[in-house]
Amino acid sequence: MEQSIIKGAGRPISLRNIQVEDDFWKAQMELVRKEVLPYQWEILNDRVEGAAPSFCMRNFRIAGKITQKKKALGNAYEEPTPTFRGFEVLPEDMNHLEDKFYGFVFQDSDFSKWIEAVAYSLMNHPDEELEKTADEAIDIVCAAQQENGYLDTYYIISGMNSIFTNLRDHHELYCFGHLTEGAVAYYQATGKDKLLKAAMRFADFIDSRFGSEEGKCKGYPGHEIAEMALVRLYEVTGEERYLRLCRFFLDERGKRPYYWDSERTEKHTQGERYQYNQAHRPVREQDEAVGHAVRAMYLYAGMADAARLTGDASLLEACRRLWKSTVHEKMYVTGGVGATCQGEAFSFPFDLPNDLAYAETCASIGLIFWARRMLELETASEYGDVMELALYNTVLAGMALDGKSFFYVNPLEVLPEACHKDERKFHVKPVRQKWFGCACCPPNLARLLSSIPSYAYTEDEESLYMHLYIGGRLTKEIHGKKVRLQIESGFPWSGKVRISFEGEEAFMRLALRIPGWCENWKVNGTEGKRTEVKQGYLYIEGNWKNTDVLELCFPMTPVFLQADERVRENIGKVALKRGPIVYCMEETDNGDCLHLNQVFPEEPVEEGSVQIQGQTFPALIAKGRKRKREEARELYRAYREAEYEKAELTFIPYYTWANRGENEMSVWIETAK
Amino acid sequence: MEQSIIKGAGRPISLRNIQVEDDFWKAQMELVRKEVLPYQWEILNDRVEGAAPSFCMRNFRIAGKITQKKKALGNAYEEPTPTFRGFEVLPEDMNHLEDKFYGFVFQDSDFSKWIEAVAYSLMNHPDEELEKTADEAIDIVCAAQQENGYLDTYYIISGMNSIFTNLRDHHELYCFGHLTEGAVAYYQATGKDKLLKAAMRFADFIDSRFGSEEGKCKGYPGHEIAEMALVRLYEVTGEERYLRLCRFFLDERGKRPYYWDSERTEKHTQGERYQYNQAHRPVREQDEAVGHAVRAMYLYAGMADAARLTGDASLLEACRRLWKSTVHEKMYVTGGVGATCQGEAFSFPFDLPNDLAYAETCASIGLIFWARRMLELETASEYGDVMELALYNTVLAGMALDGKSFFYVNPLEVLPEACHKDERKFHVKPVRQKWFGCACCPPNLARLLSSIPSYAYTEDEESLYMHLYIGGRLTKEIHGKKVRLQIESGFPWSGKVRISFEGEEAFMRLALRIPGWCENWKVNGTEGKRTEVKQGYLYIEGNWKNTDVLELCFPMTPVFLQADERVRENIGKVALKRGPIVYCMEETDNGDCLHLNQVFPEEPVEEGSVQIQGQTFPALIAKGRKRKREEARELYRAYREAEYEKAELTFIPYYTWANRGENEMSVWIETAK
Repeated sequence: MEQSIIKGAGRPISLRNIQVEDDFWKAQMELVRKEVLPYQWEILNDRVEGAAPSFCMRNFRIAGKITQKKKALGNAYEEPTPTFRGFEVLPEDMNHLEDKFYGFVFQDSDFSKWIEAVAYSLMNHPDEELEKTADEAIDIVCAAQQENGYLDTYYIISGMNSIFTNLRDHHELYCFGHLTEGAVAYYQATGKDKLLKAAMRFADFIDSRFGSEEGKCKGYPGHEIAEMALVRLYEVTGEERYLRLCRFFLDERGKRPYYWDSERTEKHTQGERYQYNQAHRPVREQDEAVGHAVRAMYLYAGMADAARLTGDASLLEACRRLWKSTVHEKMYVTGGVGATCQGEAFSFPFDLPNDLAYAETCASIGLIFWARRMLELETASEYGDVMELALYNTVLAGMALDGKSFFYVNPLEVLPEACHKDERKFHVKPVRQKWFGCACCPPNLARLLSSIPSYAYTEDEESLYMHLYIGGRLTKEIHGKKVRLQIESGFPWSGKVRISFEGEEAFMRLALRIPGWCENWKVNGTEGKRTEVKQGYLYIEGNWKNTDVLELCFPMTPVFLQADERVRENIGKVALKRGPIVYCMEETDNGDCLHLNQVFPEEPVEEGSVQIQGQTFPALIAKGRKRKREEARELYRAYREAEYEKAELTFIPYYTWANRGENEMSVWIETAK
Repeated sequence: MEQSIIKGAGRPISLRNIQVEDDFWKAQMELVRKEVLPYQWEILNDRVEGAAPSFCMRNFRIAGKITQKKKALGNAYEEPTPTFRGFEVLPEDMNHLEDKFYGFVFQDSDFSKWIEAVAYSLMNHPDEELEKTADEAIDIVCAAQQENGYLDTYYIISGMNSIFTNLRDHHELYCFGHLTEGAVAYYQATGKDKLLKAAMRFADFIDSRFGSEEGKCKGYPGHEIAEMALVRLYEVTGEERYLRLCRFFLDERGKRPYYWDSERTEKHTQGERYQYNQAHRPVREQDEAVGHAVRAMYLYAGMADAARLTGDASLLEACRRLWKSTVHEKMYVTGGVGATCQGEAFSFPFDLPNDLAYAETCASIGLIFWARRMLELETASEYGDVMELALYNTVLAGMALDGKSFFYVNPLEVLPEACHKDERKFHVKPVRQKWFGCACCPPNLARLLSSIPSYAYTEDEESLYMHLYIGGRLTKEIHGKKVRLQIESGFPWSGKVRISFEGEEAFMRLALRIPGWCENWKVNGTEGKRTEVKQGYLYIEGNWKNTDVLELCFPMTPVFLQADERVRENIGKVALKRGPIVYCMEETDNGDCLHLNQVFPEEPVEEGSVQIQGQTFPALIAKGRKRKREEARELYRAYREAEYEKAELTFIPYYTWANRGENEMSVWIETAK
């Protein structure tokens, strides 16, 4: 491997080295621990009445039985011949289940996301009971693994002779990726390596089948994630073959003739071929974020990982171009990405309809994965800004305040009647749903939220980088010395952050992200240190000692934002933001027909508060007016200057919307011109 | 039958009694005669290279062979068992066609619409060659008819044992309806009754199988039109059983338990059952225009026909309610109806997106069918207004100025990039297409345009009703006396109309529609006549003699229209209309990014002209401004008051759009507030 030429913001701090004490984030993490993880375990075992069955653990158990039978029978075992039963296989009769695979072809990954979230949670908050459940689950999963290392229940159950024959649509490599991420996390959390070893055996089996060597398969994943996962596996094991396999997958992707063409006979007629899977051309030649948004984010994150470890400048350049395309042309003001429900995908540049939006929760989670990996490549505040934006808005909006229901789709404008009556908007739900048959978002949320400090803080030997301001106690080792920092943060409601130092005196470089939304920031306590601002980060270096205290102040002034003029839907409209939080209007506070409201964007905005599910949240009150309705019989009539009545417009944090029942919501509002 | 209690604007004048001499309409009718009809005949016979094959006449020929074989074999003929091969059946290999049915299940109707248009054309313009072709076509069609009268090639070819087993989806009764409409028209045009007799035999067969009597089928058409057609057949033959069958179909529709449920086993889960087919509840209980828009229009037209002939007040009331729902809540400013591509259907009230619009050409044609039938029930100008609106805008927009390409979908806003890249808008074409596999619109256009005088004028014994002002020579008989009128009309560009009388002196009531868009109308020449305005019609009655001349003046002032405030997409926007013509902006005249333009709706609009395909069309020039683009790197930035540059905005008639290549178009434009 060539030596890396790339120098970024170091690596994420270990969750072991931070104790989150931040009210805001502790509450989120506790929701995951107390609500999401136990509920999800019940879901994985099909024990929640009224919820769509997952079949996940059931599939592993059946696969385990088969694996045992195979061991007993040896060569005498006859593999069934898989018949394609659909992307999601449901039993004909729920009361008479057969020993078949049920659920989506990627159902295994539900376990993997769960175990990953459990691992993070155990690091934050040890829990014997939970760990015992997790160990038992791991036993069930590992029992399903084949002698050769293969571990995907769809084919173990349906017939191993067809493995890796439909890489484009069947998620074996995707499931492998999630399994590996979960395995690495569980090993890091508990030191237990049973699942990690299983993942390695699976990886080794894949490595024996895929690669540039003659006779090996030249395919690559239809749904990316293995790339990121292999890097993680490489980093925890030091085995270079895993990094090599990651690079192989990246290098093969999009080569012509397309590998996937060899898998099938039918012709592709719609649009550019394989754009949906980001495999329309080699990754280094891609310059527009396209296709399925979650797949795209995972690929780009994997590319960033590989660029970091290999110093591949062309890969870094591709990442930068794709970042620009994503963030400067295809991202909602809430940090949502993937504007169209057709393929849960990116639309064309500046096509960001508010009411038809897809903006999947998982896609914004993927954007955060990618952003942090870009920070590991280069310390520039835009990556942190986007991470913060996606996190505090789209990602948090994905979960109800009580942690019991979830959004898959995160629109910026909702008229409930349209969601019920207009098939074009059936993907938009006006209230969060309990669970999904395709349950990718809730467990993805769980694994992100329970590992959030590793996105907030990264480090290298002498430096600590603060990207998000999350309060807690943090420990860092510098050349053998232990430094402790206590961080108190008012985020996301106040920009006041206090950082106190404890422990041995040590030389350290502290890099503080100056949020892009902040104009008149101040930092007190830097006396005697060298300071410098570079690419949106304030670097403070020097010797730190016990009494040192930094006081950061990032004033959060409400600001009305406007969109690029090419975003047709937002012409003449503004969105209200305060610090990292995007606000929205709800019918509950403002009456119906939100589209009749206009705001005076040059008038001062007042701070208020609103009660939602027994909690108090900051609200913003803006001066505006509401267009009067004429009670005309005609649908169309001669123009007359509109009449308005004065209105005080109440805005609530976007992520808290739809927690008071079904109602209209809008992020963007017309200005009174 | 009860005696009709309903008194409307009489019946359409016969096409025999008017010679169209109106430049505007003559050109349209000549396009149909010279371009559309010959081209379509080639299409029906699969002789147009590059066009999707129709298989229509081929199916009739194959069915003819089978019918002959059956006659020869008698009981020894074995019917094949139809297997469902899809709604559209395409051959596996175009070079090796079998003696099977190909095309859409309703492909027969393409012939029927063509023969109907041919019939009207022959009335306007005798043409031996065309009539000979038509007679030969009729021979082919009639040869396919079964001994029992059945005449739908799908089942004749595929197996007669399954006829009438899928009334909801298979269009046997629809094809019967079109066949009957064509047959009646051809009989009226030529006096030849071969096709009429075939239609009667088919009708008699259906009558023998459907009806309220015990043992008869209680089903009704999945796609309506038979209702209108049976009325026409009744009126031309005087056979009451056809009217009775029409009423049976109307009365059964939507009764519970649903007849269609007996045809199938699978459950319907989405939305209200059978709403798509307007069969969710009995027709007299319906009050919202729902489902597939063409089906809806045809049903409502049939209901109006039946109400007129039976004096059924509850049917009339239902028609009025459905009219209000359609016209006051669900119609585009262009007279387009059916706002969603999902099922080519009506969306919920006031949901009229401009860029996602469906607004099928055929649906507006259906709206015109219905509007004229409403006029036959009650003489109120709103029906004429809507007929005029749909005709001059959406319907005419359906055909290119050269008659060689067609729109199926008629959007009110187009960004070509979106049509190419956004799957949600793939139904919207930025330029007209040569032909369609499902070729309903072009032949439907042909039959409407070639019979347009029968929409413009209706009559009863002593009255002549003018709904549209189409120039020509019109003959009317009053108590045995012949009155001749010469009508000169400036429509749609000028509101000046001159009506001169010739022939014997006679008492006559003339009813002139005062267009809803017109404020200061004047009519000269009424001296000595009794005049009265009632429900938007000016009645002038008295004795008319040779020298009488009426001069009508309906000033066409450009007017900016605004939409009801519940139409979310049009808030703060206006559309420009002059007389019956709706205008739009095109990129060709106004540059790209049409959405950046704003208009000053209180400033005067000037008249101009524009060249399109070598023809000169009136244009309107309005004062406006265009928002300047900031060349910012950020997708979102702090609000700043927008800067504008002055702009002269050019508007062209909506129906002429997309005749200068692919470009942006918009009907609605923001006002500068």
